[in-house]
Amino acid sequence: MRIDIISGVPALLDGPLNHSIVKRAIDKNLVEIYVHDLRDYTEDKHKKIDDYPYGGNPGMVLTPQPIFSCIEHLTSQREYDEVIFTAADGEVFDQPAANALSLKKNILILCGHYKGVDQRVRDELITKEYTIGDYVLSGGELPAMVITDAIVRLLPGAIGDAGSALNDSFQNGLLEAPVYTRPAEFKGLKVPEVLRSGDPKKIETWQQEQSIKRTKERRKDLYEKL
Amino acid sequence: MRIDIISGVPALLDGPLNHSIVKRAIDKNLVEIYVHDLRDYTEDKHKKIDDYPYGGNPGMVLTPQPIFSCIEHLTSQREYDEVIFTAADGEVFDQPAANALSLKKNILILCGHYKGVDQRVRDELITKEYTIGDYVLSGGELPAMVITDAIVRLLPGAIGDAGSALNDSFQNGLLEAPVYTRPAEFKGLKVPEVLRSGDPKKIETWQQEQSIKRTKERRKDLYEKL
Repeated sequence: MRIDIISGVPALLDGPLNHSIVKRAIDKNLVEIYVHDLRDYTEDKHKKIDDYPYGGNPGMVLTPQPIFSCIEHLTSQREYDEVIFTAADGEVFDQPAANALSLKKNILILCGHYKGVDQRVRDELITKEYTIGDYVLSGGELPAMVITDAIVRLLPGAIGDAGSALNDSFQNGLLEAPVYTRPAEFKGLKVPEVLRSGDPKKIETWQQEQSIKRTKERRKDLYEKL
Repeated sequence: MRIDIISGVPALLDGPLNHSIVKRAIDKNLVEIYVHDLRDYTEDKHKKIDDYPYGGNPGMVLTPQPIFSCIEHLTSQREYDEVIFTAADGEVFDQPAANALSLKKNILILCGHYKGVDQRVRDELITKEYTIGDYVLSGGELPAMVITDAIVRLLPGAIGDAGSALNDSFQNGLLEAPVYTRPAEFKGLKVPEVLRSGDPKKIETWQQEQSIKRTKERRKDLYEKL
């Protein structure tokens, strides 16, 4: 799999791409990730990539030229299954979306920034628009990293333990049961007896009950979809 | 405002904290952000911070000792308004949550990692648990950065143009209208006439119509709440 990310502030992507599971997946050749600096594609002599919006609103808007140049350059080299734009007003990104994207070959992600991007870019070049949640961020880099992380950890071999991704929260529409690790007692607080019973059937029943209880208590919206 | 972030992989936080609006807010003394490495607090001689979960599930779980030590150290120095844990099964983080947090003085964020954190930590130390969306990530660092970014950009002075945050998507329950910038014509694609009319009333009416239309088309769930 190959993921290309286009950003006006590529340094924002440094940490998340160079550590943890994403880095490990790159090292294992499970995924190639390329970051493209929008400023390398601007024809503006001051390297500008944004401008004032029409209509007199506050904030700056990414101009169409550098984005068209960059995306046209990349799409001339290979076919992309999706050209994604991260935007507060996109479709809600969720686990099924991550699952679907993890099966693709080439994905291109354009990070939004400033007050938005010229609508002509969205109309002409973008195939999917995703929001990662109902809050506003200063740019699309964190959302691009979130989408990348959610996809990459699903690639076979990315997580050490293959069983781990399967019993994640959301994969069966339920939140996970509480987890405990050693020591069995810490500051007088004990791990529930059942988890230390060594009885796999009892443990599974408890985990299922807890999982349903937690979903019901915390996320009525998910519980009602079951 | 002061934000403390506790992580087992602090290098993941490098890019997002050292660039863009968060960095600018730090430089302007609007916010202090301190990152704490969980490994500095472990009493394990191999610097381990995780262990196998009870009950035989796959994945590793953060052990209670380093987290208790770190949080007890920090809370002995100042009072925190919230001790937040980023978890897939937390409350859904949204714009009203960001608005409320932006008014606090001291916030502590514990990044989840691996397969979770010992439940005793959550029961005893955490005051708020947030998920940034219904998808699973490899760690809580990106969610911590998302929450930090969403809060910091709301601090007075963080965004160059004070009006900018106010007409964001979600602040009035609506998605934003499309935005356009120069040139007025690009590859034959034109900016809508009304935005170039110079008539503020006409522009406002168009933006409101577009905003409602976009919300209705893209986010029925938000539209129905209006």
